[in-house]
Amino acid sequence: MMNRYALKIEYDGTAYHGWQKQKECKTIQGELEFAFSRFLGRPVKVFGSGRTDSGVHALAQVAHVDLEKEWLPEKLQGALNFFLKNVPISILSVSKVCDGFHARFSAKYRIYEYKILVRRAPLTLHKNRYWHLNMIQNIQKMKTGARFLIGTHDFTTFRSSICQANSPVKTLDRISISGSNISSEQLICLEFKARSFLHNQVRGLVGSLEKVGSNRWSPQHIRFILESKNRNNCGPLAPPHGLYLKEIKYENQIF
Amino acid sequence: MMNRYALKIEYDGTAYHGWQKQKECKTIQGELEFAFSRFLGRPVKVFGSGRTDSGVHALAQVAHVDLEKEWLPEKLQGALNFFLKNVPISILSVSKVCDGFHARFSAKYRIYEYKILVRRAPLTLHKNRYWHLNMIQNIQKMKTGARFLIGTHDFTTFRSSICQANSPVKTLDRISISGSNISSEQLICLEFKARSFLHNQVRGLVGSLEKVGSNRWSPQHIRFILESKNRNNCGPLAPPHGLYLKEIKYENQIF
Repeated sequence: MMNRYALKIEYDGTAYHGWQKQKECKTIQGELEFAFSRFLGRPVKVFGSGRTDSGVHALAQVAHVDLEKEWLPEKLQGALNFFLKNVPISILSVSKVCDGFHARFSAKYRIYEYKILVRRAPLTLHKNRYWHLNMIQNIQKMKTGARFLIGTHDFTTFRSSICQANSPVKTLDRISISGSNISSEQLICLEFKARSFLHNQVRGLVGSLEKVGSNRWSPQHIRFILESKNRNNCGPLAPPHGLYLKEIKYENQIF
Repeated sequence: MMNRYALKIEYDGTAYHGWQKQKECKTIQGELEFAFSRFLGRPVKVFGSGRTDSGVHALAQVAHVDLEKEWLPEKLQGALNFFLKNVPISILSVSKVCDGFHARFSAKYRIYEYKILVRRAPLTLHKNRYWHLNMIQNIQKMKTGARFLIGTHDFTTFRSSICQANSPVKTLDRISISGSNISSEQLICLEFKARSFLHNQVRGLVGSLEKVGSNRWSPQHIRFILESKNRNNCGPLAPPHGLYLKEIKYENQIF
C-alpha cells in the first residue's frame, strides 16, 4: 500500500545538466532522489512531468513519488526543503494524489516562458536569467511571425536530432509575446502553451522569432521554414538560461 | 586639462564587501579602479555617489572619474565592460560632465528600493535578490507605520554606531510601499527617497516596518521608537541582499 504525492518544484538550472538523472553529472532529478534517500534512508524514484535541458529553469516543475508511509504534505515539504537547503532547488508545494495520477502522463498542457533582456551593457543581477541581446526587437513582427506557428503542424524544423518523440506533429495552442521598454532596456517575454513539446522546440522557435524581431527575417519566413520541415532552416537555438518551465496543467487542480 | 566622465553602474553586491575600496577585500570601487588601470595602464581614482554595504546591490550607482584623454562615451563604456567581463559589475551608461560635477556632492536625491518575497519555500532563482520571509505582511499597517517617518527627523534610532554623518537629522521625502499577492507568494517593494541617508538607515527602517507588517508592533510603535532616539529600540537590520541603490538624482539629467 503506497501513498502517492505530487511535488511542485522550482529550480535554478544554471549549474545542472538538466532534469534527468545521469551517472556522472549533477541533475535535478538526481538531487531530489538524493534528498529523499537521505530523508527516508532508502531509494525513492522521482517521476517528472518531463525533462528540462541543461541550464533551463523551472518555476513549477511537477513530479510524483510513491512513499510507504503517509505524510502530512507540509511535513514532507519541510523535510525535503531541509535536505535541499544547500542546492538551488525548492519544493513549493506537496499534495497527496490518487494512484492514477502520473506527473508525465496525466499532464494536459505545458507552459514555457522565455525571457529576453535587450540592452547594450552586460547583465549582472539578471545573469543566467535572461537571454541578453543587443538589438532592439520589433515585437509586432515577432507576433506576426508567431501566428504561423499556432495550431497543429509537423515541427520537424524545430526538432532536435536526438528528440525521442514518436511524431514531429504537435499542437501549439498559444504563443503570447509581450514587450516593455524601461528607460533604455527592452524586456520581452514569450509564452508557449502546448500539450507537449519536441526536444529543443521552444528554444528553436525563440531563436527563429529573434531573427524576425531583429529584422533579419520577414515574419513570413517563419511559415517558409515551418513548411520546409528541414532542421537546417531553423534559427539558432536560443540559450537555455532564458527558458522557464512555468506551469503544468492537469485535469484537476492538484496544488 | 582633464576630462570628467560620469558612470552609471549596475552591480550584484552578493560577493563584495561593499562599495568602498579596502586593502584585502573585494569591493566594487576596487574592481572599477582595477578595470581602469588595466584599460589605461595607470591608476584612476573612482569617486562614487556614496557607499553601499556588503551584499547590497545597485541598479544605478553613479561615479565620476577624471581622464587625461577625451573619449567617446560609448567607447569608454565598451572598454570598461570588456575589462569587467568576469565580474558582476556593468557600466550601463557613460556621460561627459562638466568639471563642477561631483558624483557625491552634486547629488540632490537618492532612491533606494528594498524587495521582500514572502512564501514558505526557500528561494532559488531569487536567492540573494529578495529578503525571504515566511509570514504574510499587512501592507496597510506598514504604510501607516511608514507615515511617521516621512519628513525631517532625528533618525538616531536608525543610525549605525559607525555612521560618519555629522548629524542624525535627515529628511525622508518619500516611502512608497507596494505589495502584490501572486498565487501563494507575496511580493513587497519599499522605496525610500531622501537627499541622503545615515549608515544602515534603510535596513533599520525596513527591519522595523517588518515588525509592523507581521503584527508584532503597532504602526504607532514606529513613532515611539523614532522619538526615543535610542538605537536599542530599532528593529533588527533587514539583510543587505534585499536592498538596491536604485537612482541618484542630480540638478540636470546627466545620462
